[in-house]
Amino acid sequence: MLFHVNIAVRIPHDADHEKIKQLSAEEHKRANELQLQHKWIHLWRVAGKYANISIFDVEDPAELHDILNSLPLYQFMEVEVTALCHHPGSLEPLQ
Amino acid sequence: MLFHVNIAVRIPHDADHEKIKQLSAEEHKRANELQLQHKWIHLWRVAGKYANISIFDVEDPAELHDILNSLPLYQFMEVEVTALCHHPGSLEPLQ
Amino acid sequence: MLFHVNIAVRIPHDADHEKIKQLSAEEHKRANELQLQHKWIHLWRVAGKYANISIFDVEDPAELHDILNSLPLYQFMEVEVTALCHHPGSLEPLQ
Amino acid sequence: MLFHVNIAVRIPHDADHEKIKQLSAEEHKRANELQLQHKWIHLWRVAGKYANISIFDVEDPAELHDILNSLPLYQFMEVEVTALCHHPGSLEPLQ
Amino acid sequence: MLFHVNIAVRIPHDADHEKIKQLSAEEHKRANELQLQHKWIHLWRVAGKYANISIFDVEDPAELHDILNSLPLYQFMEVEVTALCHHPGSLEPLQ
Amino acid sequence: MLFHVNIAVRIPHDADHEKIKQLSAEEHKRANELQLQHKWIHLWRVAGKYANISIFDVEDPAELHDILNSLPLYQFMEVEVTALCHHPGSLEPLQ
Amino acid sequence: MLFHVNIAVRIPHDADHEKIKQLSAEEHKRANELQLQHKWIHLWRVAGKYANISIFDVEDPAELHDILNSLPLYQFMEVEVTALCHHPGSLEPLQ
Amino acid sequence: MLFHVNIAVRIPHDADHEKIKQLSAEEHKRANELQLQHKWIHLWRVAGKYANISIFDVEDPAELHDILNSLPLYQFMEVEVTALCHHPGSLEPLQ
Amino acid sequence: MLFHVNIAVRIPHDADHEKIKQLSAEEHKRANELQLQHKWIHLWRVAGKYANISIFDVEDPAELHDILNSLPLYQFMEVEVTALCHHPGSLEPLQ
Amino acid sequence: MLFHVNIAVRIPHDADHEKIKQLSAEEHKRANELQLQHKWIHLWRVAGKYANISIFDVEDPAELHDILNSLPLYQFMEVEVTALCHHPGSLEPLQ
Repeated sequence: MLFHVNIAVRIPHDADHEKIKQLSAEEHKRANELQLQHKWIHLWRVAGKYANISIFDVEDPAELHDILNSLPLYQFMEVEVTALCHHPGSLEPLQ
Repeated sequence: MLFHVNIAVRIPHDADHEKIKQLSAEEHKRANELQLQHKWIHLWRVAGKYANISIFDVEDPAELHDILNSLPLYQFMEVEVTALCHHPGSLEPLQ
Repeated sequence: MLFHVNIAVRIPHDADHEKIKQLSAEEHKRANELQLQHKWIHLWRVAGKYANISIFDVEDPAELHDILNSLPLYQFMEVEVTALCHHPGSLEPLQ
Repeated sequence: MLFHVNIAVRIPHDADHEKIKQLSAEEHKRANELQLQHKWIHLWRVAGKYANISIFDVEDPAELHDILNSLPLYQFMEVEVTALCHHPGSLEPLQ
Repeated sequence: MLFHVNIAVRIPHDADHEKIKQLSAEEHKRANELQLQHKWIHLWRVAGKYANISIFDVEDPAELHDILNSLPLYQFMEVEVTALCHHPGSLEPLQ
Repeated sequence: MLFHVNIAVRIPHDADHEKIKQLSAEEHKRANELQLQHKWIHLWRVAGKYANISIFDVEDPAELHDILNSLPLYQFMEVEVTALCHHPGSLEPLQ
Repeated sequence: MLFHVNIAVRIPHDADHEKIKQLSAEEHKRANELQLQHKWIHLWRVAGKYANISIFDVEDPAELHDILNSLPLYQFMEVEVTALCHHPGSLEPLQ
Repeated sequence: MLFHVNIAVRIPHDADHEKIKQLSAEEHKRANELQLQHKWIHLWRVAGKYANISIFDVEDPAELHDILNSLPLYQFMEVEVTALCHHPGSLEPLQ
Repeated sequence: MLFHVNIAVRIPHDADHEKIKQLSAEEHKRANELQLQHKWIHLWRVAGKYANISIFDVEDPAELHDILNSLPLYQFMEVEVTALCHHPGSLEPLQ
Repeated sequence: MLFHVNIAVRIPHDADHEKIKQLSAEEHKRANELQLQHKWIHLWRVAGKYANISIFDVEDPAELHDILNSLPLYQFMEVEVTALCHHPGSLEPLQ
């Protein structure tokens, strides 16, 4: 089941930069892991912003929630979730 | 070069339904064509809406404009374009 | 899988009132049917508006889309979908 | 009398994490209590967000206000209240 | 139980002016009636707009809905409802 | 002359709680005073929010400004002012 | 008493152009009249838009409402009213 | 003096297509003329939309208004004007 | 050349109150000066808000920018600029 | 390939002013450099705001992202990117 997720990251200017750097490295590792598990199937950066657009393939909204919640930078994210379905005009196989 | 395109279709209630039906059939054919040319690389329907989210892989914004403009239902579409770039944490090969 | 759906109905003032009345009667029957199938599990009217808030229990976003699309007044609806998950503090059994 | 309540929780990044953890535990207990009293009749988490959607069954808006105000995390909540009424098409018994 | 209701009236420019005039006269009578029943307890015009702000004293949201729905110009109204409660600092007797 | 005033109070989470408590007590006294002077003629709490809706009867916008400015919690308020006038359909005597 | 009024004019594309032309001529005359009465004390056009920004000097909101309502193009206007007061830093005499 | 102008064109679906085609041709000629006069110094299309972003170099806001007003499709345009000034970091000569 | 400027002042609650008081006094003096130079030709307070609406008469947008930038409280201001032009229906002499 | 970029700079009031001053000087140098490379082809200041509007000519969205990301004040910027294309009515040569 596919969900479109728009994530904007907002780091407060007075956050501890060392901690953010460490969380970013952990974020990178976690994203890697979730892609290898075919949960996080697309990940694009939005040009000019500290933001990304992703497609997740999960069992249900609860799994999506747990995955997003497990991201090390989650507390700094503004997240917008959109439920997707197969488009009758799409040639991609059903996921 | 990837662009994220959010399309909402707004058919006026007093439009000619036969014409809309015909334009929709042509739209389907055109979408098919553009997918086979690897220009329209993802196409998902937004659950509950007459709307879709797409990823286009084009030469430049001008080609994107011409493609969207060539869609038979274009005059009824509200289009939002977002320029994407490769995310350093993504495992997908560069397109 | 639960989805929260906010539906506002906008009937154009120059619509054919007889047709709207008939579609409303069909809408009522369809809502009845979907409730008996335990797909449309809650349906409330928003006080003061031609709008309702519903909870649907479906297999996936595609089933939700098909259900909403099958509503006789669908063409006049503005629909907002929100994916829900079990809240750890809720005493309701999982659906 | 039913009210639909949309709650988004915004914890400032420099809040005392121990205090937030304690308030969250108290929040959990209070939610439990209010559910057992059949005041807080539905509670769902919004997928991907620190937010929930709830249905409260109360005597009047004043009772709703007191209940929300009694939530340990209330000071960090953005609350949207919508008054509901029975929908003529709903098969649920009146509450 | 008090509700604050913000009503903006939008008459389409191609509506039948005679019918609107007649509905306005009926609206006036209905408002009169509801005020005498102490249901519609305050009614003010918003300066410069075809809009008003009202306070209704009703049994519950369902009665509010029925009252608003019974207004002859209801189909042309954009309605915003806000549930009110006694303010601890107010000297007005409870209603 | 009547003005509708919508006030939302936003206390920063790191404000001095003792000072806020004291300002709130003073606010209560000031509201009392202004009601006895028939300047602040209605005051309702918005259910679920730290917000209120009020009607002020003042000489002119300058008096309204001075009154709002004199409220002890004014610096934490987001204020929206709407000029009202007698509605031709209202049975309330002119103020 | 001063009010700032922002007026955007929206002529529906299918309006009767002869009637609009005539209403515009009457609008011009009415604006002239109100300026000579020192009610409409400033009138500026917003560059690039069919919109204007005005300052009215009236007895009260009711007079402002009657004046705006008397404008021949009123039915096509979106009006925003803001109550003004003398600024302590202004050197203009009180009006 | 430079102004940034954002123009979105909204052709009503029931407009006379022959008339629109003719107005578009005239629009093209007028844009040509204004560019040759060095009034309309930049004109870009927004990818995916019937919209453009322009820079005008004019004597004052009145000249800008007259120019925009002279565009054959003006009645169908939503226009946003932003006043620009030389940026201290810009290497472009002052215009 | 006239510009309409809407200024909202937002003082952070943890700002140094002595410094703000001093900046306000300097602001007052600067506003005085600019009015005597016939640059700041109107200045009104928005009733109920820490905000004002002004009309500036300047040579060009650059002069407007420099003037606003020179205001002692500028760093706490949210500024909206609108370019004005003479309205054909206005009886005020051209400025 | 052209992108229109709208940048608003938001310096938190409690930022270290010396550091901001230094970053601004570096920003100036970086902007200079990018203009000489014909990457940042236009740069205008928005009158009255700490904001600018720019046109960038880059290879692709990734280059745009890297450029914006390299700006010393980037962490304080709100950035909006719009993909542009040649307008058929423009007399400017293709870039």
